Amino acid sequence: MPGALLTDLYELNMAASYLRRGMRADATFSLYVRTLPPERGFLVAAGLEPCLEFLESFSFTEEDLAWLEGHGFDRVVLEAFRELRFTGQVWAIPEGRIVRADEPLLEVTAPLPQAQLAETLLLNQITLHTTVASKAARYRLAAGDADLVDFAFRRTHGVDAAMAVARAAAIVGFAATSNVEAARRYGLTAAGTMAHSYVEAFDTEAEAFLAFAEDFPQRATFLVDTYDTLEGVRAAIETIRRLHLSDGLGVRLDSGDLDRLSREARRLLDEAGLGQVRIFASGGLDELRVEELSRAGVPIDAYGIGTQMGVSADAPFVDSVYKLTEYGGRAVLKLSADKATTPGRKQVFRSHEGDVIGLRNEDLAGERLLVPVMERGARVGPTDAIGNMRERFEADLAALPEGAKRLVRAEPLDARHSAALASLAAETREDARTRAGLPANDVDG
Amino acid sequence: MPGALLTDLYELNMAASYLRRGMRADATFSLYVRTLPPERGFLVAAGLEPCLEFLESFSFTEEDLAWLEGHGFDRVVLEAFRELRFTGQVWAIPEGRIVRADEPLLEVTAPLPQAQLAETLLLNQITLHTTVASKAARYRLAAGDADLVDFAFRRTHGVDAAMAVARAAAIVGFAATSNVEAARRYGLTAAGTMAHSYVEAFDTEAEAFLAFAEDFPQRATFLVDTYDTLEGVRAAIETIRRLHLSDGLGVRLDSGDLDRLSREARRLLDEAGLGQVRIFASGGLDELRVEELSRAGVPIDAYGIGTQMGVSADAPFVDSVYKLTEYGGRAVLKLSADKATTPGRKQVFRSHEGDVIGLRNEDLAGERLLVPVMERGARVGPTDAIGNMRERFEADLAALPEGAKRLVRAEPLDARHSAALASLAAETREDARTRAGLPANDVDG
Repeated sequence: MPGALLTDLYELNMAASYLRRGMRADATFSLYVRTLPPERGFLVAAGLEPCLEFLESFSFTEEDLAWLEGHGFDRVVLEAFRELRFTGQVWAIPEGRIVRADEPLLEVTAPLPQAQLAETLLLNQITLHTTVASKAARYRLAAGDADLVDFAFRRTHGVDAAMAVARAAAIVGFAATSNVEAARRYGLTAAGTMAHSYVEAFDTEAEAFLAFAEDFPQRATFLVDTYDTLEGVRAAIETIRRLHLSDGLGVRLDSGDLDRLSREARRLLDEAGLGQVRIFASGGLDELRVEELSRAGVPIDAYGIGTQMGVSADAPFVDSVYKLTEYGGRAVLKLSADKATTPGRKQVFRSHEGDVIGLRNEDLAGERLLVPVMERGARVGPTDAIGNMRERFEADLAALPEGAKRLVRAEPLDARHSAALASLAAETREDARTRAGLPANDVDG
Repeated sequence: MPGALLTDLYELNMAASYLRRGMRADATFSLYVRTLPPERGFLVAAGLEPCLEFLESFSFTEEDLAWLEGHGFDRVVLEAFRELRFTGQVWAIPEGRIVRADEPLLEVTAPLPQAQLAETLLLNQITLHTTVASKAARYRLAAGDADLVDFAFRRTHGVDAAMAVARAAAIVGFAATSNVEAARRYGLTAAGTMAHSYVEAFDTEAEAFLAFAEDFPQRATFLVDTYDTLEGVRAAIETIRRLHLSDGLGVRLDSGDLDRLSREARRLLDEAGLGQVRIFASGGLDELRVEELSRAGVPIDAYGIGTQMGVSADAPFVDSVYKLTEYGGRAVLKLSADKATTPGRKQVFRSHEGDVIGLRNEDLAGERLLVPVMERGARVGPTDAIGNMRERFEADLAALPEGAKRLVRAEPLDARHSAALASLAAETREDARTRAGLPANDVDG
């Protein structure tokens, strides 16, 4: 993902001003989610890999510079942009981990212009991936033992989003994706059957099923609801018998009352001695409907999950920010109404007593969630594998209290601030108020 | 946007089966939105250009074919894929036009395998662009005479989505975007000021404002709410006076009570003889808040609009589908519960009596909204310009009844079916029921 112009204009304005003024001291920015979306008990950290790819390859092309020259940037600035690379450090919570509001997902420490220029893309990527991974996790909680397959591509917000959704779904344990490019790119299992149009393109449903089974005898899943669902199941049974098929068989229900239809389909299949034929359900399912079906004990073996997950329909974004917390060795924050920030480089300490957000150089009990992932502009260690991310998610999920896992009225996990962080915040707030010429009495403190 | 693997696996399965069986007769697929999202009175058609780019360049690369060979596609199919290009016809409603539920936004007529393979990406792009253009249009309705600027990049669902949002916002009349790459790519006006981090990187707000104004004397907008908004306004006034600035000046309010703060900021500026300094507001604004401020007569000259528009937060998708309506000269449809479709190639006829969806070869009164945009795989005419799309939007908006323009409880515009379409639908439904072995008595008819 190259492209130094993948940014907001104000980042370029600020970087230009910093470069012109020699303001190149190290700055630390912290990227975190201020509050959990409604009904969410936790978030799943995701999106770090594309951020690291972006930072590793950050540079302005000659075409970028030519465009900027025509849009208000002078030669002094353009020369500085030409030389600029990302040479900083990144600490982050690895992808797949379950996190809470206010916990830094990523902290960048780099010369101020570099750290500023990364803002827009880092926010964009972490927000997208974390939003969809957190949504996909809710389907995992809902589906019980049933398999889940990502069907979202057709209605995600573009191609990037489709790739992010397939990847995020894999992190939280989806078995497969319909998205072929994502399967190739990330080494996922691709899955897919037929559309209603396939059935309609033949004179009869029976002919369509026969053709498909002849062409894909090892992986025939029949879409049975084009005309009448149970008639469709009977046609599938007839096809399976006629061709003596035995492996990789399924029927897919894509409309109607999935509870009733899945039970009737199961009964028809079982009566035909086809207990091995799996029942696949799809059709605009949100996680609440999946949970309802699962709790009702329906004989659905796998769900295809599309739009509701793909756009995180009930909460299509998280309240993510990228905030300056230190510059040139000085802790900073802002005091804006309802949007105040906390200063300093941070660490999250996780123990059985909960999470504590402290300063990075503190020595508190617990596992340290943020780890160095980039030093002097280069990755620390190899590219992270999706399998590793999935293992982290599974482990964190197993440790999660029941209240945080509820799909409605979840009890959000929160994190305390360490005494040292609280104290630095108070001092920095006083300092900021003094600099701003405000009364020292800090009513928010 | 190349990439024949940017698709769902089932499209490849179906295309493979069709190719193997010589099912290459022309098929027509219709892409439309079944129902309007809640509170919407209309949609803005958008996303056609990326679809045409995709179709024009459609082909499988050798790498694509190698991957498919390892994933269940045999040599006969791979040879057919290697030769496959899009050679069909596309009719569409031009971007920027205001449309209604059920109206075909795009119809593809092509040999069946080609038309099927295009499904996923066409749906993905039309859905994204139409969703965000329709959301952005609501801000236009809300903002009165104030300018609007797209600030959404940091929280859109990836980079594609950021580009689509900037473009969609421009179509409905936004004045500028913060997204630099989008400004370059689409020839839009880029706009941007400074972040809170800029103010914090200096010892005092006054120093930050002075530095910024020195560096950008022709386009200094001061972000005034880092510490205290009205103190920030006073610091901006002081800076403007000290440097004798006169052009392109503004203050930006990004938090707090925008109604009260904008009035007080205006008063301070006016008392300082700085009537030309514009007031800019931002900060998580949805269109209802913008409408509320606008109706209250606040002195806000421009709004920066971010996440709520960028993800279309209240309705992050439209209920779009791509349905086979004709194959080999035979009209087709599906009967699925609640998801029935209508057959045949269509046209939308718009007159002062409303919209009528009819068959393409009918001769009804009114303007014909669908026009040919691709013939034999090549575009008809040049690339459409965003200026043209904006003109179409403005003209259609001017003709819209007030009820459809309301932001809450809008009266959705709908479209009637012509007698010929209704008759074809009834015949085709009977035909489908007969083929499916269902009773001829059509209870849905």
